[in-house]
Amino acid sequence: MSRTADMAAAVLACEWGRVLDAVASDVGPHRGAGRVADYIPALARVDPGHFGMCLATRDGEQAGVGDARVPFSIQSISKVFGLTLALRCRGEALWERLGREPSGSAFNSVVQLESERGVPRNPFINAGALVVTDVLVSEFGAAGALEAMVSTLRELSGNPAIAVDEEVAASEAETGHRNRSLAHFMKSFGRIENDVDEVLDVYFRQCALAMSCEDLARASLWLANDGRAPGRDEPFVSQTLARRINAIMLTCGHYDAAGDFAYRVGLPGKSGVGGGIIVVVPDRLCVAVWSPGLDASGNSKVGTLALEAFVEHTGLAIF
Amino acid sequence: MSRTADMAAAVLACEWGRVLDAVASDVGPHRGAGRVADYIPALARVDPGHFGMCLATRDGEQAGVGDARVPFSIQSISKVFGLTLALRCRGEALWERLGREPSGSAFNSVVQLESERGVPRNPFINAGALVVTDVLVSEFGAAGALEAMVSTLRELSGNPAIAVDEEVAASEAETGHRNRSLAHFMKSFGRIENDVDEVLDVYFRQCALAMSCEDLARASLWLANDGRAPGRDEPFVSQTLARRINAIMLTCGHYDAAGDFAYRVGLPGKSGVGGGIIVVVPDRLCVAVWSPGLDASGNSKVGTLALEAFVEHTGLAIF
Amino acid sequence: MSRTADMAAAVLACEWGRVLDAVASDVGPHRGAGRVADYIPALARVDPGHFGMCLATRDGEQAGVGDARVPFSIQSISKVFGLTLALRCRGEALWERLGREPSGSAFNSVVQLESERGVPRNPFINAGALVVTDVLVSEFGAAGALEAMVSTLRELSGNPAIAVDEEVAASEAETGHRNRSLAHFMKSFGRIENDVDEVLDVYFRQCALAMSCEDLARASLWLANDGRAPGRDEPFVSQTLARRINAIMLTCGHYDAAGDFAYRVGLPGKSGVGGGIIVVVPDRLCVAVWSPGLDASGNSKVGTLALEAFVEHTGLAIF
Amino acid sequence: MSRTADMAAAVLACEWGRVLDAVASDVGPHRGAGRVADYIPALARVDPGHFGMCLATRDGEQAGVGDARVPFSIQSISKVFGLTLALRCRGEALWERLGREPSGSAFNSVVQLESERGVPRNPFINAGALVVTDVLVSEFGAAGALEAMVSTLRELSGNPAIAVDEEVAASEAETGHRNRSLAHFMKSFGRIENDVDEVLDVYFRQCALAMSCEDLARASLWLANDGRAPGRDEPFVSQTLARRINAIMLTCGHYDAAGDFAYRVGLPGKSGVGGGIIVVVPDRLCVAVWSPGLDASGNSKVGTLALEAFVEHTGLAIF
Repeated sequence: MSRTADMAAAVLACEWGRVLDAVASDVGPHRGAGRVADYIPALARVDPGHFGMCLATRDGEQAGVGDARVPFSIQSISKVFGLTLALRCRGEALWERLGREPSGSAFNSVVQLESERGVPRNPFINAGALVVTDVLVSEFGAAGALEAMVSTLRELSGNPAIAVDEEVAASEAETGHRNRSLAHFMKSFGRIENDVDEVLDVYFRQCALAMSCEDLARASLWLANDGRAPGRDEPFVSQTLARRINAIMLTCGHYDAAGDFAYRVGLPGKSGVGGGIIVVVPDRLCVAVWSPGLDASGNSKVGTLALEAFVEHTGLAIF
Repeated sequence: MSRTADMAAAVLACEWGRVLDAVASDVGPHRGAGRVADYIPALARVDPGHFGMCLATRDGEQAGVGDARVPFSIQSISKVFGLTLALRCRGEALWERLGREPSGSAFNSVVQLESERGVPRNPFINAGALVVTDVLVSEFGAAGALEAMVSTLRELSGNPAIAVDEEVAASEAETGHRNRSLAHFMKSFGRIENDVDEVLDVYFRQCALAMSCEDLARASLWLANDGRAPGRDEPFVSQTLARRINAIMLTCGHYDAAGDFAYRVGLPGKSGVGGGIIVVVPDRLCVAVWSPGLDASGNSKVGTLALEAFVEHTGLAIF
Repeated sequence: MSRTADMAAAVLACEWGRVLDAVASDVGPHRGAGRVADYIPALARVDPGHFGMCLATRDGEQAGVGDARVPFSIQSISKVFGLTLALRCRGEALWERLGREPSGSAFNSVVQLESERGVPRNPFINAGALVVTDVLVSEFGAAGALEAMVSTLRELSGNPAIAVDEEVAASEAETGHRNRSLAHFMKSFGRIENDVDEVLDVYFRQCALAMSCEDLARASLWLANDGRAPGRDEPFVSQTLARRINAIMLTCGHYDAAGDFAYRVGLPGKSGVGGGIIVVVPDRLCVAVWSPGLDASGNSKVGTLALEAFVEHTGLAIF
Repeated sequence: MSRTADMAAAVLACEWGRVLDAVASDVGPHRGAGRVADYIPALARVDPGHFGMCLATRDGEQAGVGDARVPFSIQSISKVFGLTLALRCRGEALWERLGREPSGSAFNSVVQLESERGVPRNPFINAGALVVTDVLVSEFGAAGALEAMVSTLRELSGNPAIAVDEEVAASEAETGHRNRSLAHFMKSFGRIENDVDEVLDVYFRQCALAMSCEDLARASLWLANDGRAPGRDEPFVSQTLARRINAIMLTCGHYDAAGDFAYRVGLPGKSGVGGGIIVVVPDRLCVAVWSPGLDASGNSKVGTLALEAFVEHTGLAIF
């Protein structure tokens, strides 16, 4: 009997809710661990004690625990959706503008950007996400780019209330000097087509989208379903594209801790400095977790522990 | 019906041999493409027209095509087995000696090694593999370390004739200045315990092991079988460890093209500059492919194309 | 008899004007060589055939040749004067904000800035000059900082007509993405005190000052006179400070070609991408030269040749 | 009256011995400061309390203080003489093999060596000195290269007893992994012509030459005398070459503290991790100082203070 069949059996025997309760219990002693992102004042005020987790299967099951319905700042998790929209517009030609290799560097490093003349290593470091945003601004205009992102997330999650947290967006705009630096740096190599301030404005606002674990788990389901979003006739993206985005999440989804996350959790995932992480079990389900305290690489500390525990309880893994 | 079940059905309907024939036919027009590694004279003389591929399933099925039984220099593929032996000896404590993050750099780069004071990024860049070899020399002595590697590969593959190609080993020793440089560099930070020349000797000889695709596919099967090697009562390694090694292969197995390989092929794999690549389909099978011409990152050009075609024909992928 | 006395004798025997004529004749065949800076559109339009040179001694002698009185964009030569004003305000405490080591990198590199957390290597790379400008803005306000620079240069040169070329300033502001990037980068480390756009505005305008070789040679004389400017009762700066600024010019005045300039010319100097260079013969005189075509490091090609010829004709050198 | 004439007057008024006594008295409270180089065991045992200084003028005057006649390990000061011999053999063609720019990096850094494909930045970082040694080995053979160095130093200093400290040489050879790494690294780019071990052997032995401050001050006098060594009919090198070596000493003589040394001392100089420093006052004299404790950049801490005091007492400076 294959491992997949084993798992299915094991999992059917319990209920998802009980799995999440067990996970929450496992990480209970660690609640509040890590350090809330402090370089964006509006994020620094978030209570580090929050913990929420939500799971959604492609068969329509769903379970949550803790603050699963409390919205938080999705930050870099938005990069998955930005990339997806850009790939839908540009296809493989997008890769003329940026790479898809793990960077081996911090999320906001500029070193490789200089040696590679303004071409970012991958779409999940900040420089790469700025190029992706620039593509969307070229496609839709500045207002249209944000609107495309918001309406996509509302539709995929089924939550029409998803919106930008304007206080966070303003806080990012005010303190986002490193991102401004990256954008001007690439512009100096001719790698940004649009006005830098316009691109940054869209970028800061998309990072400041507030969503709950429930919203995120549902909005990501097409990644676990060969590109098909529940309730849509047309595939959101092709099977090939969905698999490829999973591959990029696995190799590049956690900055300079991508290898560690693959080693410990073993699932494609994407984190944000708001403390959220989404992971995908291909052909099965998505999980979103939230806990604001970060580790040294900027990934949710308790969130990662929870996903490790989840994999241990369920045996779900791609390796 | 799940994708895994789909695949199973699709695959049962054809025979593995026919799949490999189709793959060989697909890549036929590309035979000879790429550039044979020329920095090791004994490798530079290999005919770039070779192509071989072998598949072995955990259920005991096997199929080959082309030069599937022709031995070639496994080079960096040996790093997977070296790492495994070292992890069996030292467990998680091994990670005090090296990282497990993709490096974002070429296989022989020294830049990160300087900024990280002699601690290699991962076990699959040369510096990391030298640390692994150093661990094995500490455990088994210099002669014993090589013997442990050779006997393990003979046992796992069932081929008692596997041996070091002494001409290649001598050629590597003579021209391996970059590796000597890396080893002395780490020694200067106190990161190599044993005599540098002894460690290098084992390293060069393990890279010079000659194995065929058939040997490699069989010797790797425990990676696709939760750590259990066919015909052994005891697991070769634990399920957890097997999964973790797959994770490292996916994030770090192709030097600075790891992201590209994950994007295009989507399977854990490890390449060598001899032109070989092994990949793992967890819970199912292993494939080894060989074609000596390399791309700019040092990975087999036609071998990668063949694996892309294999995934396309079978739908086997982890994402 | 000491070399200095030798020189004095040799030089008195000829007239300065004849020396400059000989130099102009030497470099005649090279007129127009090099590449006019093309990243600032207003500079790209300058005729590469210009050549001017002016010498002023601390004893009041002066000589010129060619376009010695044609104003051009002084660009980075302004960094010498900015640094001097900042050192007059802050003294040695200025070095808490930036280093005084040659960078080994291009003038606009960001690599060291990242590894050294936003502290520039020296005041003559762009990042360092931006910190200096920031200090001046803190001291005088944005308008006052530029005014301090302009009035100082007018007074030192005796030319009340010195002014910003507003077209060049506008051109720099429009295309200065790399400088914007550097400034925001340092701001992200808290290394810029004032509003980035204000600092950049002063910086772009000070670079866009238009001065002739005659203006520059006269305005620099205090560097050759232990800090005393002709016609001023009070020293402009102390002897110690004048010497130290000469030292920084020698080690850092020509970006990543500082060593080459010291080797070939052997005098403290500072170049600008407008094609100007000033050099100092301590205790004797200053020379300013202008020729718009640049070499690969961004220094005036014919200007450097002219200074080599000047040293050869006069034997004046500090080594 | 020119500064030079001022100085001459001031200096004639005192005696050199009294100047050195005053300097020794100034630095007395700092005796023993800094950290003795500990990576070479034979150096680590040197008493940090040593202090010696010797001055020799081109007119034949000489003065010493403290341990001016105690031999110590000259270490990198040997690079000046190695470079000089190589330039005498190869002339300007030597610069095809290495640069002459300050590196902006530590003396043993490998980062730039990788990005510049094995071409060292300048002859005074270790990699550059290894290339220089390689040139000498090509010219004279391994034994001949060392012999050329030793006999030159004996002749220039007038001390036939100058010899390699074999204990230090053995200690360097045993612990010199970083230098081995650099040499193999360059060899991998084809930048070292001879056998790496032979080149290293000469290099380690030349660094282990034991000389006193008196030996060094006398052996360097040609640098202060337009290339003429006292008591030789033929110039040791040309005036041009002597000046150029001074220029390289000023820009590159103190590793990543070259700018600081120029700023504080303002004279061309070269330091060694044995705690020695030589400086040149062109057209006048040379000074050698020794105090084993080093600062963070590997330059003698008290030696640098003594040279600052010397400049303050005498007003001798090139700027």
